[in-house]
Amino acid sequence: MHAPQSIPADLPDVAAAILARLAARSPRVHCITNAVAQNFTANVLLAVGAVPSMTVAPEEIAEFVARADALLVNLGTLDRERREAAAIAVEAAAGRPWLLDPVFVDRSASRTAFARALAAKGPRVVRLNGAEFSVLADAAPTDDALKRYALDRRCVVALTGATDTVTEGARLAKIRNGDPLMGRVTAMGCAGAAVVAACLAVEGDPWLATAAGLLAFAVAGECAVARARGPGSFAVEIVDALAALDLATLRARARVG
Amino acid sequence: MHAPQSIPADLPDVAAAILARLAARSPRVHCITNAVAQNFTANVLLAVGAVPSMTVAPEEIAEFVARADALLVNLGTLDRERREAAAIAVEAAAGRPWLLDPVFVDRSASRTAFARALAAKGPRVVRLNGAEFSVLADAAPTDDALKRYALDRRCVVALTGATDTVTEGARLAKIRNGDPLMGRVTAMGCAGAAVVAACLAVEGDPWLATAAGLLAFAVAGECAVARARGPGSFAVEIVDALAALDLATLRARARVG
Amino acid sequence: MHAPQSIPADLPDVAAAILARLAARSPRVHCITNAVAQNFTANVLLAVGAVPSMTVAPEEIAEFVARADALLVNLGTLDRERREAAAIAVEAAAGRPWLLDPVFVDRSASRTAFARALAAKGPRVVRLNGAEFSVLADAAPTDDALKRYALDRRCVVALTGATDTVTEGARLAKIRNGDPLMGRVTAMGCAGAAVVAACLAVEGDPWLATAAGLLAFAVAGECAVARARGPGSFAVEIVDALAALDLATLRARARVG
Repeated sequence: MHAPQSIPADLPDVAAAILARLAARSPRVHCITNAVAQNFTANVLLAVGAVPSMTVAPEEIAEFVARADALLVNLGTLDRERREAAAIAVEAAAGRPWLLDPVFVDRSASRTAFARALAAKGPRVVRLNGAEFSVLADAAPTDDALKRYALDRRCVVALTGATDTVTEGARLAKIRNGDPLMGRVTAMGCAGAAVVAACLAVEGDPWLATAAGLLAFAVAGECAVARARGPGSFAVEIVDALAALDLATLRARARVG
Repeated sequence: MHAPQSIPADLPDVAAAILARLAARSPRVHCITNAVAQNFTANVLLAVGAVPSMTVAPEEIAEFVARADALLVNLGTLDRERREAAAIAVEAAAGRPWLLDPVFVDRSASRTAFARALAAKGPRVVRLNGAEFSVLADAAPTDDALKRYALDRRCVVALTGATDTVTEGARLAKIRNGDPLMGRVTAMGCAGAAVVAACLAVEGDPWLATAAGLLAFAVAGECAVARARGPGSFAVEIVDALAALDLATLRARARVG
Repeated sequence: MHAPQSIPADLPDVAAAILARLAARSPRVHCITNAVAQNFTANVLLAVGAVPSMTVAPEEIAEFVARADALLVNLGTLDRERREAAAIAVEAAAGRPWLLDPVFVDRSASRTAFARALAAKGPRVVRLNGAEFSVLADAAPTDDALKRYALDRRCVVALTGATDTVTEGARLAKIRNGDPLMGRVTAMGCAGAAVVAACLAVEGDPWLATAAGLLAFAVAGECAVARARGPGSFAVEIVDALAALDLATLRARARVG
């Protein structure tokens, strides 16, 4: 096990550089995501410069994934077609980075089993909240448990909440940005995970890509709160804020450690 | 049959108290709703403090419903999975309150038959417009026909339109709030019905819960119209208005009788 | 073959007249469209006065189409149910106008084959971008190739992009309105095609209906850009702009030839 390292002091600069690469390269991000999140996720991806596709048809999913630069697998509204598509997609991903977002894995036994099987297929990142981690990993979401899970699965674990924790076992980052209003809009976490998937397409260090993506999303959330009058306008403002996000804002607002 | 009673003079106060309970208790509302309405409905529920879930997978629906405090069954975009899920869900609901929203029941014979079968399974509330009532009940939507239907099915009938009528047979309320712009945004009626479902989770008198929920939604609509420049901004403003709705606004605007 | 004609100088007037007919007649437009586009498309149709329905259930699609005034078939997120529904719907359309929007036809072989089969079933209009035309027609998207395709299939071809080209073989129009921000919001092209489908319901000349619909949508986009601060607010503003669009604005902004 490597000696723990603190998060680079220049994470805002890393995030800005990744956003610049997204704008320049327009990577394709294929999303198997839930029906509630599809439109918002697509608009968030477009706002950061990525090109989303969203089909879940088992007949075509392999071809879409083969032409994508990254893959998002989100288990919300997990119907039969999505189960079938996810299984095909993670095989088709081959060397491409993919992120697993096991939404509501704590709510049904069949979803728990399915999520565990997918987690064993080599996601580059697993994004979840504390309740979901507890069920997926069968352990309380302490920093040590997150590190252990990451080391065992050779993946990055991103635990999101009031503070986001990102670790691949050795390195561990805490991101203290964001706002409670983000929890009052549906699919906010799903869309943040999609931004991370986009970052994976243009940054080879998945831990850095994940920390940078979550930082960018949370800082955009803070900018949006400053303009919003409630959850409805907040959902609009965060898309504008993501499209306008720059280095100065990231530096001014980042609270990482 | 009980003697008819007029709506309580303090319906705005009842509505404000219900909204306070929603904010305090964050009840879970599981929604089987149409693909067009899912995102907007989830955001409307979050705006009033409820926690939505939206899966329609027959494999998991029973577990989601068993952990929910109320259930919404909306028949828009009624595909095979939703039919199967709805049948399982209303059984799994057991004693939990559930609301039936038979969208477009007048447009296809198979939907009419399916809606009638569901209506016989004991919904606490049936929410529909005049054309839908005419087909579901095979009767013109007069106050007397609504009362008869409610008494026969032992449910609350909520007929929505320019004026909303809410009856459980004895008591009957008319709510004259709202704005024509509400008809220019998709899924507005679906989302209003979801608010009623949330109210059922925290108020044991379903007639009062329904009248209060529809009043709150219509008053929020009026507040949103005052700020909107068209149907696009209206859909954003009504979510903000729901999250900010208070007793003073409800009292100032309520037109009930 | 008719002698080529230039676009009528009064296309803005034609578009305004069509919008007035939409508002007066409220035609029903049934949409088989992708999961990402459903909500936005419904709101765009409502903004121009049309009444959308969106079911894709094979059991009911024929009845919905039989009661509609126009049909939209969009191939995004082309799952099994949508394939089955599309095949039934275009038969049920009978004499009704329908528009084919073969989204991402260039991304999967099964989608290419399905789109070609549908294109042979007599759509009144085919709406696509250059990459999609190249695969569907197996030819580069030159004006001559578009004309040939239109003549062969006896349909209108609408090639959308920075400039929209609309031809039925003889007449050909170029519409140079719109804004790059329209490409930063998901389902924008899908919604524009839905507006064209609505226009087909109230205008018997499909080439004119298509050119007028695309002009109206692009001009509304320009109005929205003038008010928006980014792609999030733009998606809201374009719905407001469509609902408010008038002859003076169309005349002032139209760049057609």
